Amino acid sequence: MQSDPQVQLLLTGNEIMSGDTVDSNSAMIALRLAEIGLGVYRKVTVGDNSELLRTELLAMAGQADTVIINGGLGPTVDDLTAEILAAAAGVELTEHPEALAHLQDWCARRNLPLNAANRKQALLPAGARVIPNPIGSAVGFELNLGRCRVICTPGVPGELRRMLDGIIDDLGRSLARPTQRHILRLQTFGLGESTAQQMISDALPNWPPAVELGFRAGAPQMEIKLAVTDAADLPLRTQCEQQLRELFGDHIIGEGDSQLAGRVLELLQAQGRTLTTAESCTGGLIASMLTRIPGSSAAFHAGFVTYADDIKTAVLGVRAETLAAQGAVSEEVVREMALGALQRSRADYAIAVSGIAGPDGGSADKPVGTVWLAWGSADRLQTACLLWPVERGLFQTMVAATGLDLIRRHLLGIASEPRYVSQRRTR
Amino acid sequence: MQSDPQVQLLLTGNEIMSGDTVDSNSAMIALRLAEIGLGVYRKVTVGDNSELLRTELLAMAGQADTVIINGGLGPTVDDLTAEILAAAAGVELTEHPEALAHLQDWCARRNLPLNAANRKQALLPAGARVIPNPIGSAVGFELNLGRCRVICTPGVPGELRRMLDGIIDDLGRSLARPTQRHILRLQTFGLGESTAQQMISDALPNWPPAVELGFRAGAPQMEIKLAVTDAADLPLRTQCEQQLRELFGDHIIGEGDSQLAGRVLELLQAQGRTLTTAESCTGGLIASMLTRIPGSSAAFHAGFVTYADDIKTAVLGVRAETLAAQGAVSEEVVREMALGALQRSRADYAIAVSGIAGPDGGSADKPVGTVWLAWGSADRLQTACLLWPVERGLFQTMVAATGLDLIRRHLLGIASEPRYVSQRRTR
Repeated sequence: MQSDPQVQLLLTGNEIMSGDTVDSNSAMIALRLAEIGLGVYRKVTVGDNSELLRTELLAMAGQADTVIINGGLGPTVDDLTAEILAAAAGVELTEHPEALAHLQDWCARRNLPLNAANRKQALLPAGARVIPNPIGSAVGFELNLGRCRVICTPGVPGELRRMLDGIIDDLGRSLARPTQRHILRLQTFGLGESTAQQMISDALPNWPPAVELGFRAGAPQMEIKLAVTDAADLPLRTQCEQQLRELFGDHIIGEGDSQLAGRVLELLQAQGRTLTTAESCTGGLIASMLTRIPGSSAAFHAGFVTYADDIKTAVLGVRAETLAAQGAVSEEVVREMALGALQRSRADYAIAVSGIAGPDGGSADKPVGTVWLAWGSADRLQTACLLWPVERGLFQTMVAATGLDLIRRHLLGIASEPRYVSQRRTR
Repeated sequence: MQSDPQVQLLLTGNEIMSGDTVDSNSAMIALRLAEIGLGVYRKVTVGDNSELLRTELLAMAGQADTVIINGGLGPTVDDLTAEILAAAAGVELTEHPEALAHLQDWCARRNLPLNAANRKQALLPAGARVIPNPIGSAVGFELNLGRCRVICTPGVPGELRRMLDGIIDDLGRSLARPTQRHILRLQTFGLGESTAQQMISDALPNWPPAVELGFRAGAPQMEIKLAVTDAADLPLRTQCEQQLRELFGDHIIGEGDSQLAGRVLELLQAQGRTLTTAESCTGGLIASMLTRIPGSSAAFHAGFVTYADDIKTAVLGVRAETLAAQGAVSEEVVREMALGALQRSRADYAIAVSGIAGPDGGSADKPVGTVWLAWGSADRLQTACLLWPVERGLFQTMVAATGLDLIRRHLLGIASEPRYVSQRRTR
């Protein structure tokens, strides 16, 4: 591991420090570096402060093989990158003919005069190599500080994206990397991070150190990542993967970027079937998660958001007597919602949900967080009542995902009950 | 300025370093610190690597008055924060009774056993003070390293958000800062950052330097921030605010955290009216944005997701002849969708949308990104056809927000056409 080239990122910009802008550039850079087997060892972000920038740059250049600076290439006085790099290298800032030609061309194409602010962008450290910018006015550039290669890139995400193509190619060629990380990602639903960790500790106490295990808990899914740095360990990783698949079973949705909604649509399309939704407390979120996926129209034709009681009756045919006798959050109501939606949409499968998202509307019998779900086909409809006592937005997200997971299990013919149903079932 | 307390952030997590997760937590922390007049001086991000974490923490604690660590509080082996802080402080990790009680309660509420992985979250550096976590299993905690206060917070954004309320209050009280920033935030829809900037440069060339102007472009809204550091400048800020309100007019939705969906619901409730939705290309997103707001059931009772043509006919009564003659993405179809939804839901107002979200389904006449919208009441229905040639998810977000903004304007009785309609209208 210690022979891997070390890459560090230095990000600059007052708008990132103030929180006005969320930095997505460093994630973009990290993902592109991963393509050539490189990780980011350390990342430092500072405002447009020359003193601090110079200190950080010098410290990084003393440690890393490659430093990528992002931001500070613009035309304004607070764009300091070229100046700082020149000072750190002990060279002058000079007008670079290639950068100037680029600026002249860029302005000409836009019928703009080349003003002084723009012209500043042609001032680069003497000896710097230009990195072309196919979109913006500011070229990128690079210079060595001792044995460290410093690459300066623009803060505008669209410009950075295009510029990275060349940078990554070049780094891939020049940094002969002995090892490459081989990553497998498994997507799960219905497992908490601590539960998963505990299950692994209990069932697989002799986990091999060569297989790095990582978790990324998101709402609603959790990702488990298995990585090895030596290709010779790939069979070991496969063995670990098999053990995890046995351990977590149907809680594993798929690999890579698999998402519940996408998985459900795949299963429906493979079976030539369609799905409809009848949503109360999730208010259209299940339909929205499905239709976010390109091509969803093949298997999803209709969804109903029946938020009020009389609408459940008028639109889905839920009987007023059922509502009066059982309440809107009840097994019989979600059953009638599902059947009404199936009939009106002529779909093969339905998901119906009715619950109390809060913050108001709970009772002793049915507290905030209670939800009834019905899922399946007209002749095989399953139901469950679960309790998710969390904030409204998270409740909606988790319930919507649960509906999708339950229909996924139904489509796969999985008979066993998932852990989260057993644990959260209230009746 | 040099007497201002210095705050640094230390972020940890392999998922941030790899680029799998974009860090929005540090922006959240910076925005909250700004409320009490504090800036972030420096931010360092590293993976789950104890050696590196300890080095960075010690360096920071030697410089800063306050260090906020984010991440690494979870139950898994790669969550190292408590361990690192204990080592840096030269104290033991001990099971903290308050943290344990919190965990026991957290598990009990969820019908979960308290397993060893969870129990690890009660192990805190000796002498640490607990910071309550109202949502998640991991409490936050703080400890002094020499004269530096180190505050450890969870990486889950929803948990961090809640925990920051107490932390910011506390920091605001304990760090006597000479100046406090007075911030006013205006939420806008339908303006780009560069357009807004240009409009201000053109119309208000003598903007006073004492009023700091900032933009935060998000999808779908853009925030404009006005800040003064001296209370004596508040009248000047008010004057600037008035000028901006004149300049941007109805593009301003509201102040603070105002959101389109919340604003629409407020207007409906004030007028005692209800709204329904008939969605094709947005697939339930408009309904979902509305129902995400607590109390939405007062003004939103029913929504229809009619994704397929025959469903538009069966569920909303759109005439098959109209679909055949005009196509699903047409003025007459969205008009019939709106009227059908109004009739079936007995709501007062409707939003109907039908468009081509892509990536497939476009034609020369109606390219990907084309959308027809209808909005208003049965006796006053307006329509527009707009073009938004962007990626599917962003298209859905922008179209859903547009539908909400158009009904907001309708409810406010605004006759003039918003800029984005004039600019994007295709017919």
